[in-house]
Amino acid sequence: MSYKVAIRSFKTLSYLGSYKKIRDRPIRYYCAAVLGAGYVAYKEFKRNKAEMKELIYLKNYMAEPITPLHQLQKNQDDMKTQMELLIMRIQAEFCRALEKEEDEAWEDEKTADDYDFDNDIFLPSPEAKFKVDRWTRKEGGGGITCVLQDGRVFEKAGVNISVVSGRLPPPAVQQMKSRGKNFESKELPFFAAGVSAVIHPRNPMVPTIHFNYRYFEVKDKNEVHWWFGGGTDLTPYYLNEEDAVHFHLTLKHACDTHDPSYYDRFKKWCDDYFTITHRGERRGVGGIFFDDVDSPDQDSAFSFVTSCAEAVIPSYIPLVKKHKDDAYGYHERQWQLLRRGRYVEFNLIYDRGTKFGLHTPEARYESILMSLPLNAKWEYMHEPLPNSAEEKLMKVLKEPRDWLNIEKPKSTAA
Amino acid sequence: MSYKVAIRSFKTLSYLGSYKKIRDRPIRYYCAAVLGAGYVAYKEFKRNKAEMKELIYLKNYMAEPITPLHQLQKNQDDMKTQMELLIMRIQAEFCRALEKEEDEAWEDEKTADDYDFDNDIFLPSPEAKFKVDRWTRKEGGGGITCVLQDGRVFEKAGVNISVVSGRLPPPAVQQMKSRGKNFESKELPFFAAGVSAVIHPRNPMVPTIHFNYRYFEVKDKNEVHWWFGGGTDLTPYYLNEEDAVHFHLTLKHACDTHDPSYYDRFKKWCDDYFTITHRGERRGVGGIFFDDVDSPDQDSAFSFVTSCAEAVIPSYIPLVKKHKDDAYGYHERQWQLLRRGRYVEFNLIYDRGTKFGLHTPEARYESILMSLPLNAKWEYMHEPLPNSAEEKLMKVLKEPRDWLNIEKPKSTAA
Repeated sequence: MSYKVAIRSFKTLSYLGSYKKIRDRPIRYYCAAVLGAGYVAYKEFKRNKAEMKELIYLKNYMAEPITPLHQLQKNQDDMKTQMELLIMRIQAEFCRALEKEEDEAWEDEKTADDYDFDNDIFLPSPEAKFKVDRWTRKEGGGGITCVLQDGRVFEKAGVNISVVSGRLPPPAVQQMKSRGKNFESKELPFFAAGVSAVIHPRNPMVPTIHFNYRYFEVKDKNEVHWWFGGGTDLTPYYLNEEDAVHFHLTLKHACDTHDPSYYDRFKKWCDDYFTITHRGERRGVGGIFFDDVDSPDQDSAFSFVTSCAEAVIPSYIPLVKKHKDDAYGYHERQWQLLRRGRYVEFNLIYDRGTKFGLHTPEARYESILMSLPLNAKWEYMHEPLPNSAEEKLMKVLKEPRDWLNIEKPKSTAA
Repeated sequence: MSYKVAIRSFKTLSYLGSYKKIRDRPIRYYCAAVLGAGYVAYKEFKRNKAEMKELIYLKNYMAEPITPLHQLQKNQDDMKTQMELLIMRIQAEFCRALEKEEDEAWEDEKTADDYDFDNDIFLPSPEAKFKVDRWTRKEGGGGITCVLQDGRVFEKAGVNISVVSGRLPPPAVQQMKSRGKNFESKELPFFAAGVSAVIHPRNPMVPTIHFNYRYFEVKDKNEVHWWFGGGTDLTPYYLNEEDAVHFHLTLKHACDTHDPSYYDRFKKWCDDYFTITHRGERRGVGGIFFDDVDSPDQDSAFSFVTSCAEAVIPSYIPLVKKHKDDAYGYHERQWQLLRRGRYVEFNLIYDRGTKFGLHTPEARYESILMSLPLNAKWEYMHEPLPNSAEEKLMKVLKEPRDWLNIEKPKSTAA
């Protein structure tokens, strides 16, 4: 975000430059101001770049942060603050990106009344806006749930952040134990901050995306354990191999800067995790998933999670743009609804995040279940026709593919 | 079923009476035949009544029983056979009753080609028929799944029987332990036979019904444990108090003949069990539910379960007849779909039967998930309008009512 600081300094300078009083002063004052401002901007830029620090941009967020501002400012270097600022920013950036796509679908209905002459652009349609709910928990913390429902491009889009703390009850401890953590105490003071989104588009040619990045701290016998978890995965209704490759490649780039082994490991973990066991099929074409990153150190792990979260928009929005106006009919819609039924099965039966959430006392179930589609369907014994586009998808769901090797040069006998 | 034997004897007699050769014989032969047949019929009637024995009616069943016929005949007194025969009969009777309702909805499209002149009735519409799937399991046993989908009266109706045996894996043992059974062995040979049905009608004024009656045998260290479980419950979309009273009253009658304390206990158990915990609401207006009936003895318990299963048709079919042609519109349909989403939540998150089923290796998931509605909907933060019919239902779901006391005479100050 440091480039924003630089841009702001530059804007200030242009303003100063055009300001009559200043312009009338001798040129050396002007040069000194330019150099001074430039130096300050440069120092700020260097410092933030080196530390990868999240800054506070109140105006950009979807709502006021959960933790009071003065507390965030006071503890800005604490990982709890850093994570809260990261998820606030990711939520806002992703919501704006989706709103932009939605807004374009309403453009033909805009009139001169909706024109902003000062900035020479159309105002966004009120229909294309996320509904923002900021909520707090009695036990500590709260969240911001943003939902766009029944849109033209998105049938249901939910982008949620939560920053909660309290004591973990036994069933939730159980959920964490299965993640490989063994704690001695029965009830543990904890802190969790995360962003989570599920986007169900209307057009069956546009895939559903889910991502979730979270940070945990648990105190056990005066020792603080911390770890990051998260992932991004894609659930298409019709398989487009080019899309799957683009999606995986974007995630791989995000991983590779941090550890060359990450993508392979987390891709496999994703295929394993998003399995609808009773049907023997995956939820989608995968992506990355990790449950327990606490190495090499806290700052590096945070920087890795930041890269992953920043990769969501470039991995997904191009697919939305590409397919949102594709032709489809009744048949494709029915198939999409059936696949959404499978999505519901996974989320309610297997997803640990959902279970963890619903077992937390006073859970805000509306935010947890925001991941469910607006509409879903279950038909008894539905089978796609042989050699149909639907069957092509099913094959990939039954046997996950190594997307980034599919174009490996084959050994040619020449 | 003994009255069928009596009717058959009577028919035989009338036939004999009309048969010329016999009629020409002296009256004393005729009288002897009447008395003889009457005596046989009476003995048969008494014997069956006393034993409440299920008989084998191959022609009436939806498909061939799971256990080979010769084995059923050989072990007809065994409870495993008795239960299999009961569930075969209940499945067939309930499917026919639903087909009759569905068929009437197709009547206006029938032509002379569909008329059976011999029996002076219209033939049932092929669209109004259940699709019957008889399946077997490698590990032992199998089932018969009957599904009617996308009908005019029923959007999705599933009536399933299963007769399975094998060894219980640890997660399934866990499911049974929570039912108050503690077994020593880790893997247990078991037998389970049950009938289970969920009917989702199209008209939102007709409630959804679910029932399930099952018999378990588990062998632990050479000792056989057996118990019955089951229940019938109603899930309306719009509350009709008269319907709820009729439904509960029919179940109460079925219970009362066996134990005057049953209805109260099992009604409460039903309200407790069918709770969507995270929402703090019941799935519907209840009914009866019991998990572990093994007293006073096996025959009495079986006879109680038989009464309950036989009460399904009189408790439900009158409600279908009463409301299937009620007027409704877009608004009511949307509400029905939202409530069906809640039904999915209960079944996938809380229902022990679904969990038990999906954890059984090689589970036939299509039969287990046949309970899910054809269509369901999830809207973020949907709230019924104050004082609406939808809110009236929600009040009852949040605070279960004692349906059979609502008409208690109030003390009048006169």
